[in-house]
Amino acid sequence: VITIGDELLIGQTIDTNSAFIGQELNNIGIWVRRRVAVGDNYSEIWAALDEESKNSRVIIITGGLGPTADDITKPLLADYFNGKLVVDEKVREHVRYLIQEVFKRKGPVLERNLKQAEVPDTCTVIFNERGTAPGMMFKKNGVIYFSLPGVPHEMKGLMKKIIPILEKEFEELPVIIHKTAFTAGQGESIIAEMLKEFEPSLPPNIKLAYLPNYGMVKLRLTATGTNREETEKLLKPWFSQLQQIVKEYLVSNEDEGLELVVGKLLKQKNATMATAESCTGGYIAHLITSIPGSSDYFKGSIVSIFGAVSQQTVSEMVKGTISKLKVDYALAVSGIMGPEGGTATKPVGTVWIAVGNKNKTETLHLHLRFDRQRNIVTTSGNALNFLRKFILDN
Amino acid sequence: VITIGDELLIGQTIDTNSAFIGQELNNIGIWVRRRVAVGDNYSEIWAALDEESKNSRVIIITGGLGPTADDITKPLLADYFNGKLVVDEKVREHVRYLIQEVFKRKGPVLERNLKQAEVPDTCTVIFNERGTAPGMMFKKNGVIYFSLPGVPHEMKGLMKKIIPILEKEFEELPVIIHKTAFTAGQGESIIAEMLKEFEPSLPPNIKLAYLPNYGMVKLRLTATGTNREETEKLLKPWFSQLQQIVKEYLVSNEDEGLELVVGKLLKQKNATMATAESCTGGYIAHLITSIPGSSDYFKGSIVSIFGAVSQQTVSEMVKGTISKLKVDYALAVSGIMGPEGGTATKPVGTVWIAVGNKNKTETLHLHLRFDRQRNIVTTSGNALNFLRKFILDN
Repeated sequence: VITIGDELLIGQTIDTNSAFIGQELNNIGIWVRRRVAVGDNYSEIWAALDEESKNSRVIIITGGLGPTADDITKPLLADYFNGKLVVDEKVREHVRYLIQEVFKRKGPVLERNLKQAEVPDTCTVIFNERGTAPGMMFKKNGVIYFSLPGVPHEMKGLMKKIIPILEKEFEELPVIIHKTAFTAGQGESIIAEMLKEFEPSLPPNIKLAYLPNYGMVKLRLTATGTNREETEKLLKPWFSQLQQIVKEYLVSNEDEGLELVVGKLLKQKNATMATAESCTGGYIAHLITSIPGSSDYFKGSIVSIFGAVSQQTVSEMVKGTISKLKVDYALAVSGIMGPEGGTATKPVGTVWIAVGNKNKTETLHLHLRFDRQRNIVTTSGNALNFLRKFILDN
Repeated sequence: VITIGDELLIGQTIDTNSAFIGQELNNIGIWVRRRVAVGDNYSEIWAALDEESKNSRVIIITGGLGPTADDITKPLLADYFNGKLVVDEKVREHVRYLIQEVFKRKGPVLERNLKQAEVPDTCTVIFNERGTAPGMMFKKNGVIYFSLPGVPHEMKGLMKKIIPILEKEFEELPVIIHKTAFTAGQGESIIAEMLKEFEPSLPPNIKLAYLPNYGMVKLRLTATGTNREETEKLLKPWFSQLQQIVKEYLVSNEDEGLELVVGKLLKQKNATMATAESCTGGYIAHLITSIPGSSDYFKGSIVSIFGAVSQQTVSEMVKGTISKLKVDYALAVSGIMGPEGGTATKPVGTVWIAVGNKNKTETLHLHLRFDRQRNIVTTSGNALNFLRKFILDN
């Protein structure tokens, strides 16, 4: 995977495209060997293409296809694949349609937009319904290349079209299966200690990886094989054993967020919830509502920036939320996220969490020691896990 | 920059470290030439080190330093730099202190944790207060290497220590200055059209880049020189000219988020605000409260999942929020984010936004056509920009 753009190198943009591309390829048994980011620089892009072509059979390039002068990918690809830029009529009509009829821009279509319809005559166009820059496919010396725009929404749409092309192109793709056990409440090294006999006992085609993240550890087993059914059958007992060993801390058997785990639990119980957030400022509500269909069980949040950071305050917030919003469960948090606002008795990182239903309230006290962003994320994760356990027990 | 970890290649983790590293290096005039991500694989890491050493004078490596078996960076670095692993006593005491006195873990410190204190005897340890894995510095054939843990909080702490080392090491670093003009409300190609005479008139050491993102376009001018003062003086009139050309859409002259722009405006006016959010589910409140000190002007949010998606509803939400939370300004949003919930008259992507003060309410209607996440982010950006304009005008 080659990503193009100075903004990636100077850190103005975080590359989320590569992760999506990696997931999609992995699903069909293609392993991403390397990921290289280079600037908007002709010779650097050319060198990266040369170099990656030596070791990979598929190369996916994103970025540098926009309508502005710093976008040099297309003329470069024309040169690299010995072609010249020609207008693709279907793309040209699509550009016109998008600009005049979807974006409803007045006046004639700009020349720079129409130029988006030019492609090297050595490529196969992969039509991009979602934007003006077309995807392109090239083949050279047994390597297959795809060039995609860097806009995530457009790149994602095109990846969905590339996957079946690759499946047809490589008939004998290996099977790669990942199974992820998601634990919370214990550090990576303690989890590793629990698995110290399990890990070396794994067969050579099953690999264990640890993915620690804000007080949660994802344990990923990756099995490689030639036949899906057989590989799944081989992986199954090892994954069961893994779940068994870490069961005290196991949150989920899927690679999913706590907000989805909690959402599924509530759906199962046909129950509702709401939050009262002080220090997390709506972040927990945002996590929960990022799940499609969450309005079935999530009834709202009261984000209030006042309120003392104490056990009593969060308990009262839970009770008030349950009665006001008429929900089955409520979650409340209050704390000092920093960098300012700490006192001698309540330093930055002091957090109180409460969860409850109409009969019962439980509280949790945290002492965090990170920066503001991480304190907010860590508090939210702990709160959702605390709620998850409360729902399971009550 | 070399990042290590299978999780990066299969897309289980989004790499945010590289952006931070790029920013820090850029600030002192070091340009990141390439960024390479490789898996937890000895020969791939070795090859990446060999290859990047050919073209870069500084190599920063992150990841693979954890206490588990898939973490192979440290033994590899011992081999690569012809050393052997030895215990660093200061790090060992720090590991013990963290585990027993900060994490308050009972029992003796695990062998796998104490192993974190082992470093190649050919390195200089860069002490990591924030975690158990130390940073390391190596030198070989005129290239300087740093190995840092992949945990963002720890990596960031160590980068702050590396910067002065690099400044001392490379006395004649070039000056790189970025100035970013942040526009909202107009697409990249229209902005480019406005700048079509400006861009070719730039001197060769000033470069313009376009960074489009969810209806906003950041325009970055990058000047390179040998003297900070002179380079700043050269850049200044060009940046003024840029601001002038795009002034109709200009939000800020800094590379900052809308939530910070709005926060600064409110602070200036000594005014307060609150939000009422339906479809964004607390995301706007989260953005606003991610700014340190936001509790001075942000008084809270009512996240309510009910409510009709209409002009009247959002107007009433604004009025209710102003009177209930006693704030100067309120922002309300309601919409259908998808993938479900659309109807013939109100399809997915229908959004109503209202902003107001006690005298006046204004509304904005959007028709989005993205996925749920992007609809939430786009709505929030539009809402904050709408509020910004309202505050400026009222």
